[in-house]
Amino acid sequence: MKSIFLKDVLLNGTHTNIRITGNRFSSISTTIAPEQDDEVIEASQFAIVPPFYNAHTHAPMSLLRGYADDMPLFPWLNDHIWPFEAKMTSDDIYIGTRLAILEMIKSGTVFYNDMYWMMDAVWKATDEMGVRACLGVTVMDNLGEEKLRKSFDLIEEYQEKSPLISMSVAPHAPYTVSDKLWVRSAEYAKQHNTILHFHLSETEKEVADCVAEHGLTPVRWLDSLGVLSSNCVAAHVVHVDEEEIQILKERGVAIAHNPVSNMKLSSGYFKSLQMQESANKVMIGTDGCSSNNNLDMQEETKFAAMIAKCNYGPETLPVDVLKQWSLTNGPKVFGIDAGEIAVGKLADALLLDMNNERFVPNFNMSSNWFYASNCEAINTMICDGKILMRNRKVKNEEEIIETAKRCSMKWMK
Amino acid sequence: MKSIFLKDVLLNGTHTNIRITGNRFSSISTTIAPEQDDEVIEASQFAIVPPFYNAHTHAPMSLLRGYADDMPLFPWLNDHIWPFEAKMTSDDIYIGTRLAILEMIKSGTVFYNDMYWMMDAVWKATDEMGVRACLGVTVMDNLGEEKLRKSFDLIEEYQEKSPLISMSVAPHAPYTVSDKLWVRSAEYAKQHNTILHFHLSETEKEVADCVAEHGLTPVRWLDSLGVLSSNCVAAHVVHVDEEEIQILKERGVAIAHNPVSNMKLSSGYFKSLQMQESANKVMIGTDGCSSNNNLDMQEETKFAAMIAKCNYGPETLPVDVLKQWSLTNGPKVFGIDAGEIAVGKLADALLLDMNNERFVPNFNMSSNWFYASNCEAINTMICDGKILMRNRKVKNEEEIIETAKRCSMKWMK
Repeated sequence: MKSIFLKDVLLNGTHTNIRITGNRFSSISTTIAPEQDDEVIEASQFAIVPPFYNAHTHAPMSLLRGYADDMPLFPWLNDHIWPFEAKMTSDDIYIGTRLAILEMIKSGTVFYNDMYWMMDAVWKATDEMGVRACLGVTVMDNLGEEKLRKSFDLIEEYQEKSPLISMSVAPHAPYTVSDKLWVRSAEYAKQHNTILHFHLSETEKEVADCVAEHGLTPVRWLDSLGVLSSNCVAAHVVHVDEEEIQILKERGVAIAHNPVSNMKLSSGYFKSLQMQESANKVMIGTDGCSSNNNLDMQEETKFAAMIAKCNYGPETLPVDVLKQWSLTNGPKVFGIDAGEIAVGKLADALLLDMNNERFVPNFNMSSNWFYASNCEAINTMICDGKILMRNRKVKNEEEIIETAKRCSMKWMK
Repeated sequence: MKSIFLKDVLLNGTHTNIRITGNRFSSISTTIAPEQDDEVIEASQFAIVPPFYNAHTHAPMSLLRGYADDMPLFPWLNDHIWPFEAKMTSDDIYIGTRLAILEMIKSGTVFYNDMYWMMDAVWKATDEMGVRACLGVTVMDNLGEEKLRKSFDLIEEYQEKSPLISMSVAPHAPYTVSDKLWVRSAEYAKQHNTILHFHLSETEKEVADCVAEHGLTPVRWLDSLGVLSSNCVAAHVVHVDEEEIQILKERGVAIAHNPVSNMKLSSGYFKSLQMQESANKVMIGTDGCSSNNNLDMQEETKFAAMIAKCNYGPETLPVDVLKQWSLTNGPKVFGIDAGEIAVGKLADALLLDMNNERFVPNFNMSSNWFYASNCEAINTMICDGKILMRNRKVKNEEEIIETAKRCSMKWMK
């Protein structure tokens, strides 16, 4: 198998050579030289960094980009988003997911944690595009038993189909899932060793409704059901108190923070400082394209930093914590042997162009990457030892865009 | 003189042809054809939109990008920013300004309102790079009378030197400028018909100190001195009450809102909803590169929208208001006959690539531009009838970047 040889690349501030054999970094040294069949990339103007993990999104919703904006939550959902989604076919889901992954590759995201419908179509698009993912099959009571059973069957069917893609159970949210279905989902996830991915405490209304119905806040209610454990990824987690943050920490629940979505929908302020101090397993996610309206993790990371500093002071979320939240906690939570550029690790990487004006001057590369730059500086993306983008070109991108444009026509007014 | 002919370009949702003769749009019609010497741009995949106005920045501070981050305000200023600036020569200012303008052109900004030192060097860089600007010569009491007089002389010397560049008086802030110097600056600005550009009510401390010293808040104090009028551009304006917003409106003061800087330095929340409802003349600015860390107005506009929605509800700052704040209020405030793509107007424009994945689908182009996209979608930038960027290439960009890199070496630890 052909190896990739990155010549004279900048790694943590010094130039070196990196060899990728198969799907792993096989050697990193100034003294190695390319072998005869190696694909050599002249990389002296590039810095190599780990790619982003998008901890919570709904990829197929890229087809809803810009469909409804600047609206209060319930008219937005009831009159626009849900009627749109009701018309989506399996083909649309496939097309929307390809568009989403194209955008993710171009903005440096190597892995996404999804929650949506018709996940076989999402799986197909993901497998073809070559990124990593954990695909959450949504379950909620109003599906009815037959569809629920099919949902669980789908997880089993696809769980082992690709080393890059795992499946998860995704009980939608405390207000759409009964105690019975929470317990069933959690048991399923434990038995089948999958992630349990859900929305949690996103809005004040959700918390108030949960207290009214169950006499407990969402975190406490789920904890009382025995649902919370270290295989859980909870998205949003905006309206929680100190004790709930501790409960989440003790149970090992990972948290997906979605700053742009929380801001755009006016959901509330994520407790960034408390989460940083308690060292909860926080990751960053973009949410879907209808509440963002993109899947750009570099931008999302800057938003996470800025809203945290705004609310809790300029020292909150320094770049080292941002790295954990957007680059290194993800691989740990999802059990992927990646997240750093080191011999033996899975070969996932971005090559950032140090001649891009946003990296000049270069007093602090991480600060430039998170605060000053944008995805245009990403020249190359490598996932699992394969080059998915080179010189900002992704395979088939014109066709993916053309197909998505045509597909969206049916929703044009 | 050679004209530019934009063939089949998308303008407000329909395709047409646009001719630019000299520095103005000379005709817009589906029926015109290119003349023999016209420079023809095949533009069927591009939408034409007005470029951004950056209402408040310190361009030379691009050289301080990433020099100090994640710090409280006063150690940041005292121990890092000010000692850095003390070492800056006129050459550094020139080099930093070129780097800043390169970044501005690449991110679609055609005009910037600056405040800094050694503005002759800033003028030279701006004139060479070909963008519009209003260059504020900073005045504050600790300069002493001789330097103050030289500052005012500099304004007169450069005021008429270029049709693209005006000069302004920039009394730094209420805490660095005495009542006498405020009055002198305001009178000078009126006599010489210039903008008066200053920081105002940026932090709580500034307001408290002003009340302690003068018995009035900064807005009321400046108003009592007769400083506030329709030639004023006040930057930040975070800590103001309803009555102060009304005073600013009645006096016709334009306001430069700097969302990222206010968030990064934890200065406070801009009163977006009240400003929108009172229809004050608000514009958006990036502030300098040490509190941002870029000059990207598209990103800044998204930040302005998101922090407004976060604090005041999802309907706050819809795209139509964002257009006013970042595209059309600027030309009005600075007296530039531009800000729309229309016959007779100055020919300033961006060509946005509709095949960029962030514009797919295209239910709402403005929403895609402000919320989903980024500057990579800008293919071409035209200022005053001249093409400053084509296919994302700016004249001399390699040299500008190389020079700035070399220049920054002296601050590397």
